[in-house]
Amino acid sequence: MASIVPPRLPRGMRDILPDKMIQRQYVEGIIREVFESFGFEPLSTPAVELAETLMGKYGPEAEKLIYEVKHREGKEDLALRYDLSVPLARVAAMYPDLPRPFKRYQIAPVWRAERPQKGRFREFWQCDVDTVGAESILADAEILNVVYEILRRLGFSRYVIRINNRKILKGIGRFVGLEGELLAGLYRSIDKLDKIGLEGVNEELQRNGIPQAEIDRMMDLLRVQGDQATVLAGLRRQLADDPEALAGIGELEQLVAALSDAGVPAENYQVDFAMVRGLEYYTGPIFETVVEEPKIGSITGGGRYDGLVGLFSKQSLPATGTTIGIERIILVMDELGMYPPQLGKTVSQVLMTIFSEEMLGESLKLASELRRAGLKVEQYMGNKGIGDQIRYALKRGIPYVAIVGPDEAAAGRVVLRRLDQNVQLEVARDQAAAQIRRWMAGDQPAGPVGV
Amino acid sequence: MASIVPPRLPRGMRDILPDKMIQRQYVEGIIREVFESFGFEPLSTPAVELAETLMGKYGPEAEKLIYEVKHREGKEDLALRYDLSVPLARVAAMYPDLPRPFKRYQIAPVWRAERPQKGRFREFWQCDVDTVGAESILADAEILNVVYEILRRLGFSRYVIRINNRKILKGIGRFVGLEGELLAGLYRSIDKLDKIGLEGVNEELQRNGIPQAEIDRMMDLLRVQGDQATVLAGLRRQLADDPEALAGIGELEQLVAALSDAGVPAENYQVDFAMVRGLEYYTGPIFETVVEEPKIGSITGGGRYDGLVGLFSKQSLPATGTTIGIERIILVMDELGMYPPQLGKTVSQVLMTIFSEEMLGESLKLASELRRAGLKVEQYMGNKGIGDQIRYALKRGIPYVAIVGPDEAAAGRVVLRRLDQNVQLEVARDQAAAQIRRWMAGDQPAGPVGV
Repeated sequence: MASIVPPRLPRGMRDILPDKMIQRQYVEGIIREVFESFGFEPLSTPAVELAETLMGKYGPEAEKLIYEVKHREGKEDLALRYDLSVPLARVAAMYPDLPRPFKRYQIAPVWRAERPQKGRFREFWQCDVDTVGAESILADAEILNVVYEILRRLGFSRYVIRINNRKILKGIGRFVGLEGELLAGLYRSIDKLDKIGLEGVNEELQRNGIPQAEIDRMMDLLRVQGDQATVLAGLRRQLADDPEALAGIGELEQLVAALSDAGVPAENYQVDFAMVRGLEYYTGPIFETVVEEPKIGSITGGGRYDGLVGLFSKQSLPATGTTIGIERIILVMDELGMYPPQLGKTVSQVLMTIFSEEMLGESLKLASELRRAGLKVEQYMGNKGIGDQIRYALKRGIPYVAIVGPDEAAAGRVVLRRLDQNVQLEVARDQAAAQIRRWMAGDQPAGPVGV
Repeated sequence: MASIVPPRLPRGMRDILPDKMIQRQYVEGIIREVFESFGFEPLSTPAVELAETLMGKYGPEAEKLIYEVKHREGKEDLALRYDLSVPLARVAAMYPDLPRPFKRYQIAPVWRAERPQKGRFREFWQCDVDTVGAESILADAEILNVVYEILRRLGFSRYVIRINNRKILKGIGRFVGLEGELLAGLYRSIDKLDKIGLEGVNEELQRNGIPQAEIDRMMDLLRVQGDQATVLAGLRRQLADDPEALAGIGELEQLVAALSDAGVPAENYQVDFAMVRGLEYYTGPIFETVVEEPKIGSITGGGRYDGLVGLFSKQSLPATGTTIGIERIILVMDELGMYPPQLGKTVSQVLMTIFSEEMLGESLKLASELRRAGLKVEQYMGNKGIGDQIRYALKRGIPYVAIVGPDEAAAGRVVLRRLDQNVQLEVARDQAAAQIRRWMAGDQPAGPVGV
């Protein structure tokens, strides 16, 4: 045997222990259900990709964060995936027989060697939902409907999905006379509007050598106020000479109409010309979701990227989608206590006790019966008395306890106990599961969940 | 934009496309449900571990297959996990406040740079279920009950869980006078009994320099035939002078009694003294599951390993568990066509068509209504006529289609079509979901699933 190795984790990596995994599985389960309710289908891609698949897609700063992978006899340059979008583009290019549109979701970890800090890890989960091969703006609208439906079912209400269009941003750039690197700098400055305010953006643009007259022209555009229709009509007048911008405005009008038809409430989305999104590859509508409390940045982000598949194939394909930021969603839900009360700190619903050694067989039988009836039953395995077994259930947060002593066994009966109210009942053995279910049903308050 | 990179995968890696993922999720869902029905709880550990955590645990041949991981500024030696047992041992040693017993499951990929071949990949999923901190043989019996319940619910019937005990194997070694490396060689030979037969084992042992008299003594032990009780009683007489072997026999008797009490049918398990299991670290009961058809090796494998946690901590903990070989289970289910007929090749249950551009809003509304009623609804997004839309649903395997034209919209009604029987109905809009559910219920034959 080797000497003792102290148990440690690599920097920035974490274990997720059962109490947190139970909450995470609840969130992931809802996300998955909503994805599938729209007909999105599961896809799995390997954690390890060829380095050439990933490199050149995210920009040099991001690519410094990519982990390299090697094995003894390997001749390939390998890397851990950095996101789920580039692997999707590879898949879309690699299998010509995939259905069109190809609607897929993927819930999986990605790896980035960022400086670890509170709440930020080097392995984290992404939940991506994308439609490849659909030009229609209905595909973009559907992505936003998915976001709305997930947040509704998780119990979020105070949030806004911000919507913009890269075609409009490019039009604004042309309107103020900027292209290329200057335009990219303009995007980066505008993107900080939330953080540094109009005044801050103004100063930064001046520092970057953009003339005040052009800054003023742009600010007039960004400052258009009012409801969605007014804002879009206002911009349509200002950018009347720019066909691409007009196309972008038309797309947003279609998008907003489809959201309204699908029943997404108007207070949960908002056209925002100052929203840019970091990634270079977006080509049409872009969107992100911001919660009002706590201030945590965006919890979803995505858009249309009609060029990405073309990096892997001569024949490109239109595509749109979003990442649901499950890590940030969990942070918000932790902070606001948004989990349903019936979500326990353990999965077990019933502790099957052992009354005495002679009664062990009866306990094992009853545990199997209760499981067949659909209950989650932990079989006690120690050698302590019933009092200690009940204390164990209390400590573990297991809400119900079943006991079979010699008298109950002889009479075909079971003692059931619900620990929160210290209620005890004796029931016929074949009624035990039904009784526990009645207790469980009574426990479930009408909350935001289970809708 | 960069030049086109041909879309390729690393050697031995694979994408799992939606049709296969739908089947995999079905299998994984049942495994997860059974794990939780016994009170096992989810755990997540990182894909990337410190190399020192993994090295020295699996033996030098296995450790050649471990992938190294690096990042630009990293000073740690990192590796991709090779299995889920060693990370569990690390976790058990690292968090002293975990409940005792600590019952956890983990369903996650592991990575091994083995030579790729048909059906064997360098990234594959393991489903592990373990109880740490319970000395009781009830914990081992429960693991076997979990295996039985999973296989029952997946529809397996012709299989045997083979059970042995390392303490008995050690006793047999002492009985024939072997210890140390000679004993390890004996195990390896015995383990081949299935493949090379008694004669082959005999020859191999001779070649390894074990005297014929000792081989004969051992063969007498391995040849004990009959039901579990007879076999165990026979061995008890033969090894009456070996306290450890007697303890092992006692454990198997307890194990078999607990399985019987829990309702595991006797034809699905069998004591087999010639079953060894590869890993060094087992200390008590060991078990593996073999299906009769197809010949694919073991589909589960595990045992008690009371020493592994001690590699990470001065205070060791008893532990027992198994891997459920989901990859091989899926191979068997593919080959025997064991998926339930209602498991479609797509997740979508309904295609919501677009009758005409003017009716788009009505379609989007109805799709939302059907989703709220719990159905999985794909919204059509192209610009073809109804006939082409129905052909699309047929091609994709979507079983039901919903149509709203101007007449239906005005009358508050919907046309529904089930494609397998080419039946069409017009129903009130608020009855549409219920009608589809009735069709779906009628479709579900009483199969091995949904029990």
